[in-house]
Amino acid sequence: VTAPPLKLGIAGLGTVGVGVLKLIDQHGPDLTEKAGRPIVVTAVSALDRSRDRGVTLDAYRWHDDAVALAHDPEVDVVVELIGGSDGVAKALCFEAAANGKSIVTANKALLALHGAAIAEAVEAGGVTIGFEAAVAGGIPIVKALREGLAGNAISRVYGILNGTCNYILTEMRETGRDFEDVLDEAQALGYAEADPSFDIDGVDAAHKLAILTSLAFATPVDFDAVHVEGIRHVTSLDIAYAGELGYSIKLLALAEQTAAGIEQRVHPALVPLSAPIAHVEGVFNAVVADGDFVDRTVFQGRGAGAGPTASAVVADLVDIAAGRRVPTFGRPVASLVAKPKVAMDAHVGPYYVRLMVYDRPGVIADVSAVLRDENISIGSMLQRGRSKDGAVPVVLLTHDAKEASIRRAMAEIGGLKTALEPPRFIRIQEFT
Amino acid sequence: VTAPPLKLGIAGLGTVGVGVLKLIDQHGPDLTEKAGRPIVVTAVSALDRSRDRGVTLDAYRWHDDAVALAHDPEVDVVVELIGGSDGVAKALCFEAAANGKSIVTANKALLALHGAAIAEAVEAGGVTIGFEAAVAGGIPIVKALREGLAGNAISRVYGILNGTCNYILTEMRETGRDFEDVLDEAQALGYAEADPSFDIDGVDAAHKLAILTSLAFATPVDFDAVHVEGIRHVTSLDIAYAGELGYSIKLLALAEQTAAGIEQRVHPALVPLSAPIAHVEGVFNAVVADGDFVDRTVFQGRGAGAGPTASAVVADLVDIAAGRRVPTFGRPVASLVAKPKVAMDAHVGPYYVRLMVYDRPGVIADVSAVLRDENISIGSMLQRGRSKDGAVPVVLLTHDAKEASIRRAMAEIGGLKTALEPPRFIRIQEFT
Repeated sequence: VTAPPLKLGIAGLGTVGVGVLKLIDQHGPDLTEKAGRPIVVTAVSALDRSRDRGVTLDAYRWHDDAVALAHDPEVDVVVELIGGSDGVAKALCFEAAANGKSIVTANKALLALHGAAIAEAVEAGGVTIGFEAAVAGGIPIVKALREGLAGNAISRVYGILNGTCNYILTEMRETGRDFEDVLDEAQALGYAEADPSFDIDGVDAAHKLAILTSLAFATPVDFDAVHVEGIRHVTSLDIAYAGELGYSIKLLALAEQTAAGIEQRVHPALVPLSAPIAHVEGVFNAVVADGDFVDRTVFQGRGAGAGPTASAVVADLVDIAAGRRVPTFGRPVASLVAKPKVAMDAHVGPYYVRLMVYDRPGVIADVSAVLRDENISIGSMLQRGRSKDGAVPVVLLTHDAKEASIRRAMAEIGGLKTALEPPRFIRIQEFT
Repeated sequence: VTAPPLKLGIAGLGTVGVGVLKLIDQHGPDLTEKAGRPIVVTAVSALDRSRDRGVTLDAYRWHDDAVALAHDPEVDVVVELIGGSDGVAKALCFEAAANGKSIVTANKALLALHGAAIAEAVEAGGVTIGFEAAVAGGIPIVKALREGLAGNAISRVYGILNGTCNYILTEMRETGRDFEDVLDEAQALGYAEADPSFDIDGVDAAHKLAILTSLAFATPVDFDAVHVEGIRHVTSLDIAYAGELGYSIKLLALAEQTAAGIEQRVHPALVPLSAPIAHVEGVFNAVVADGDFVDRTVFQGRGAGAGPTASAVVADLVDIAAGRRVPTFGRPVASLVAKPKVAMDAHVGPYYVRLMVYDRPGVIADVSAVLRDENISIGSMLQRGRSKDGAVPVVLLTHDAKEASIRRAMAEIGGLKTALEPPRFIRIQEFT
């Protein structure tokens, strides 16, 4: 091979950064064949040079300041694996673009919060940014939406975008254990962070969804338009009821083009067992894209971890090394069009509602009256047995109803004398 | 946009060709944004100019001889949608490459039988060939293997590659009807051809598998190395037994790197209900690729039809229009290395065996003795009831056994006096 190597400067040497070093080390000759030129690491930056990472850094130029990679003449491409929507990661990416260096990143927060600005900087710098690793780990979904499905108008993109939540919900269903208990275990196993809130409160999935939305609908990334709910309030009781009714509870991330605009939402949902994402279990992720010509496509794989993330990073590097360029969100920034967002209150769909009530005459009549007054019709109801203390769960599945009506009804039902606790509701997603 | 348009010459105006015309017509401005230049059809060729296809051809140059597209100065890219491994389709592709025109094709037979020669011609001509549409219809699996998973050594690639067979097997399971009956229906619905043998005898799936094998294992396409069996001998009785035992019967197409070489095989298989392809139903296709860094990835979608196939063709066209080039099988032809093939007789795995025997003392003893002599151990056995005429089905699941041993044992059991008909066997695939 006579072509000059593609020289990488890697910022951040956590598990993913080390995974990238290992992949390039193990598959070097193969990557050279695929890319038409060698891909070599020339420089690195991390917080602590001396930490034992199981790999030797002696051959690489070292920078205490990651942003210096953007100015290193021995670096063609900056691989940003620091993370975080602002600070060093952001500075490094903008600086790299301004200096004519392409970027590969796994940083979903950065893209979700500053995607349009990044795309502009990249375009102005005449470079490209690869962010396959930022969404759904090893699943090549960014490539699928930017390139593989380029012939389609996408009407809906959705999936399971957070492996931590999917692991917890899967374990809760399989073992009947409670959320807190399973979260503790997930933390012990390394599937959940010490501070798990980004994952379990839905923020991580929302970052990824905002990026997918931009790719699918040719609109600037708009993280603030995403309705975000996590899984803390999901109980194993609800999971068991859902199962009886033919549903699985998943943390759904969904963006849809509706007549009123684009709906973007992350929340627990009852999905029918026939849905393509119903059988995606444990730490696996899945993305479904519905296109007008291709119809339904489904992509599954590991959404996190050193190996899958390194796989995604290196795929982007091979593209860059081979001279394959794609606009950041699949088309020039000037072609991205802001579209109306649909507020969650305007969402219409069926709902799962669970009440805990005193089992007294008239309870159901009271509840039914509240729902009737909000124009919510009941599709089915589940009530069985009678507990010793007189408290019984009642489960209702509604027909299509407006979110605002459901919320008002819930507040009113929660105020009934017979209600033992505020009623819980979980949206049902039918994927018609 | 000031960039010059990419000019297409389309050969073959069947449902897929017309689908491509419609897609480009409907999404023209969108494709221009994505590709950075317009993609326009300038010339077409088909058998009959006057046939009503629901689209007007007036704006295009017409060629009675498809090969003439390769010489038309108004054609940059030849879109070959004629089909067939030889004849006009082959001549057109080689002629186009020799004339410096890139090619996009949906022709799996051509690639499966002449893949290496095509790749050489394309490389020599300094052009590219896109064949996303040749494998698994609208699923961007060629892109995934050539680009998205480029960082991985692939250990195994498998899936459901023929929608006709999957439709038939799904219908047989859901309705309990027989093969012939469901095939008739599939023909009436347009899911099966008038001459369905290419599909139901496994040839179509084998073509696609041979292509996937080359992409996954960096080896020249070797269609002759594929073991090919279709679904004609699958009965609804076997499907029902499989279901009872926790399996679904699918037409499996699988290529695997083993210690002895590469195994490539297409045959009906019992797959556990927990397998990623077990719930892929009807005309849908699925491909699973196992990579060393990414682990398991799964891709699902429609494997045929005008819309999905046009989607794949146009994705390739956008890549070419945007100047994105990929070597035919992901790397230069000179880097493809022929690897040892594993004969089917050397295959080792568990087997489902169904016998029809006279229910007399000693039958099981006779059968067991044959299996013991061939070193085949039985994992479980299912025999129940007794029929009026004394004939009973006996189902055995074996532990890992060698195919050659199974075949000898089957022949011997078929010769037993108590055997009513030759025993049937179907391989079990556990996906460990």
